[in-house]
Amino acid sequence: MSADTPRQFHLNAFLMNAGHHDAAWRHPHTQPERITDLSYFQELARIAERGKLDSLFLADGVALWGNARYNAVGGFEPLTLLSALAVATERIGLIATVSTTFNEPFHVARKFASLDHLSGGRAGWNIVTSGNVAEARNFGREEHLEHALRYERAAEFLDVTKELWDSWTDDAPVVDRERGVYTKDGAVRPIAHRGKHFRVDGPLNVQRSPQGHPLLVQAGSSEDGKEFAARYAEAVFTAQQTLADGQTFYKDLKSRLAKYGRTPGQLKILPGICPIIGGTEAEALALEDELTGLQVPEYGLQQLSGMLGTDLSDLPLDGPLPELPEEQDINGNKSRFTLVADLARREKLTIRRLIARLGGGRGHRVFAGTPEQIADQLEEWFTQGAADGFNIMPPYLPGGLEVFVDQVIPLLQERGLFRTEYSGHTLRDHYGLERPAGRLVPTAATP
Amino acid sequence: MSADTPRQFHLNAFLMNAGHHDAAWRHPHTQPERITDLSYFQELARIAERGKLDSLFLADGVALWGNARYNAVGGFEPLTLLSALAVATERIGLIATVSTTFNEPFHVARKFASLDHLSGGRAGWNIVTSGNVAEARNFGREEHLEHALRYERAAEFLDVTKELWDSWTDDAPVVDRERGVYTKDGAVRPIAHRGKHFRVDGPLNVQRSPQGHPLLVQAGSSEDGKEFAARYAEAVFTAQQTLADGQTFYKDLKSRLAKYGRTPGQLKILPGICPIIGGTEAEALALEDELTGLQVPEYGLQQLSGMLGTDLSDLPLDGPLPELPEEQDINGNKSRFTLVADLARREKLTIRRLIARLGGGRGHRVFAGTPEQIADQLEEWFTQGAADGFNIMPPYLPGGLEVFVDQVIPLLQERGLFRTEYSGHTLRDHYGLERPAGRLVPTAATP
Repeated sequence: MSADTPRQFHLNAFLMNAGHHDAAWRHPHTQPERITDLSYFQELARIAERGKLDSLFLADGVALWGNARYNAVGGFEPLTLLSALAVATERIGLIATVSTTFNEPFHVARKFASLDHLSGGRAGWNIVTSGNVAEARNFGREEHLEHALRYERAAEFLDVTKELWDSWTDDAPVVDRERGVYTKDGAVRPIAHRGKHFRVDGPLNVQRSPQGHPLLVQAGSSEDGKEFAARYAEAVFTAQQTLADGQTFYKDLKSRLAKYGRTPGQLKILPGICPIIGGTEAEALALEDELTGLQVPEYGLQQLSGMLGTDLSDLPLDGPLPELPEEQDINGNKSRFTLVADLARREKLTIRRLIARLGGGRGHRVFAGTPEQIADQLEEWFTQGAADGFNIMPPYLPGGLEVFVDQVIPLLQERGLFRTEYSGHTLRDHYGLERPAGRLVPTAATP
Repeated sequence: MSADTPRQFHLNAFLMNAGHHDAAWRHPHTQPERITDLSYFQELARIAERGKLDSLFLADGVALWGNARYNAVGGFEPLTLLSALAVATERIGLIATVSTTFNEPFHVARKFASLDHLSGGRAGWNIVTSGNVAEARNFGREEHLEHALRYERAAEFLDVTKELWDSWTDDAPVVDRERGVYTKDGAVRPIAHRGKHFRVDGPLNVQRSPQGHPLLVQAGSSEDGKEFAARYAEAVFTAQQTLADGQTFYKDLKSRLAKYGRTPGQLKILPGICPIIGGTEAEALALEDELTGLQVPEYGLQQLSGMLGTDLSDLPLDGPLPELPEEQDINGNKSRFTLVADLARREKLTIRRLIARLGGGRGHRVFAGTPEQIADQLEEWFTQGAADGFNIMPPYLPGGLEVFVDQVIPLLQERGLFRTEYSGHTLRDHYGLERPAGRLVPTAATP
């Protein structure tokens, strides 16, 4: 960023089937019949690109989420979908979630390198360690790996994938037809990784990609998660309910970077927000109520039981939460557990009210208001040191994304807070992050 | 097929970087600079679709193939590439190779279901068990799994993936907004697989796809491979050098189907052919010689050493092959070993001549001639009981595919041997194969 460019923030469109609200699929403005229809996601991607958003993002798990009886689930796998969306778009970044727990580094390094080539440098990887017993049980395990061990494996996984991405130099292919030499001597080399979790010879069978490495994104906000993010992540999707919590998290995470030799600008923090937008505040609140009124209680109760690691199914909906376990005893998503438990305690919510509060963003901040009010909120968090940008979670789709792009983005642009045109071509360009240099120096000066 | 439709054959376009000939990348008519460029593969896919071919196909391995110093390698991963190609095409089938040895059934079932949705029912899976030590060493193993064990694992892998594809009924999503019911009762169910190699709870997190199951393709022609194909495969890519060998293989494989309760029409056999096409026979032979003249001997020697499980690097190129191991002692690709060893013995080839013979098709049949002669060859194999269609392996790309589509296909169409227009929309439609019924019956008659 040059000195005379005002500091601007980053926006990611978090796409989710019929929308982020768990009752979105019942709303007349959504299209839950189309979640297995590529053209539906092409439309969403084009709306986001029209808004000049940095990226779009697909969450993921390797088990059926929620309960298919009560929610629109069972759509696409992210890497295949984003590969198709690369063709429908030209500039927007494409971020897929992939778990390090149930995968192998060679496969993951390769698929992201391939997506990065396909998209001309627009691939991003949201690294998760998976927190769900149902996922473990699709991969031959009865229980999930212990939390700290998952992060230990994730760290080694990242070390291996980065080595694989660097196993070709950028200038390896010389394509010298005359001499019959396709790559430079020493420019494609094994990595011979021998670690605790992985042994991988390499080299990768994909040439170094336009971005060198895809953008590395992370979302866990536990202690282990924050340390991992400080070491590896370039963008962090986080869930914070209040400005104060956002500021604390922001300061904490940025302060951890120095010990890994990194500067604060090398990691962008994007809290999630589910914006429920109306022409007036009353209209926005009415839309929120309408969505709450469509919630299926059985579904909300199952989701909440999962987040809290506590079976709530026999408790009265209008009563309080029972005694909850300590975060240290949670082996799933620790930071989400704490966030939800704190929210219920702080606002003294009954189970029913808590389900209503979580319906829009599963723990992410939900804010109902006019386009002006939404823009004010984003500006406040950005200028008050709680965010480098935002993870936008439209409550219903496509309309909730469309209204954000058509009514909120122009306000942000008028205020100089958001780009009016893409200035670069790769996802790293959009986030203002450098392309990693390769670590391999060819052994010979001549090709 | 109705009684008055003449029997027609099937054609698959086997795409391979700069072309199938190992020296293709050195030929002035190829574009080895573009193997990491999506638009190159989009062009190839559109040429194949213009020719009304049943499908296009990408081979794969999970290690760097050959030697990047001497060949154009390091392009795309197949599932990501085919997902992007689904958008560039409308009718042609899209077949990706994925190994059962270094993968998990949940991931593979899911990605193919996703590709099948993305493409509107055009996905096919070429099932391989991997035969290469370099692959094992990218996945924490020092040696490859033993051949029979690989096939045992592959069989269970297929059983699990088929159960996962059937874990949603076709009519599961009822999308009843009014009642808040997204799927029918009992229409999405765990599979609870407990086997020797895999324990997988399911259900899949992708709805049942347009084809029910992607087309199942297989290419191994060893005893284990043929038994596996007879049990699971719907199309088989095979390598046969002579009509007699083709007839023997065809008869053998078709005769194995009955024991699995299958009819001969349920499995299509497609021998590979690398057609070197010229305006006259002399031109075709000159092109073949030109390609042979561009071969890099070091590369051919490495490839041949790998196929024969024997280090040939210190032997004189103009001398004979040394004593070879027995097929039973080969743990890689057994059928390819035998084919190459037989070819060398039958034609008394020196190492140099053998490398030249294998340059075009790595053991697949290479035939140089005019479009008429190529069409005659295909017609002969088809009418003489050696093939239900062919796996077309253009020696150089894009030209070798273009000339096949523009000059050979019209001859085949004139002879009534090949379609002039797609009659169906899915890959199964093109191959004349039924859509598998699901195995799940909802528990309740009402949604």
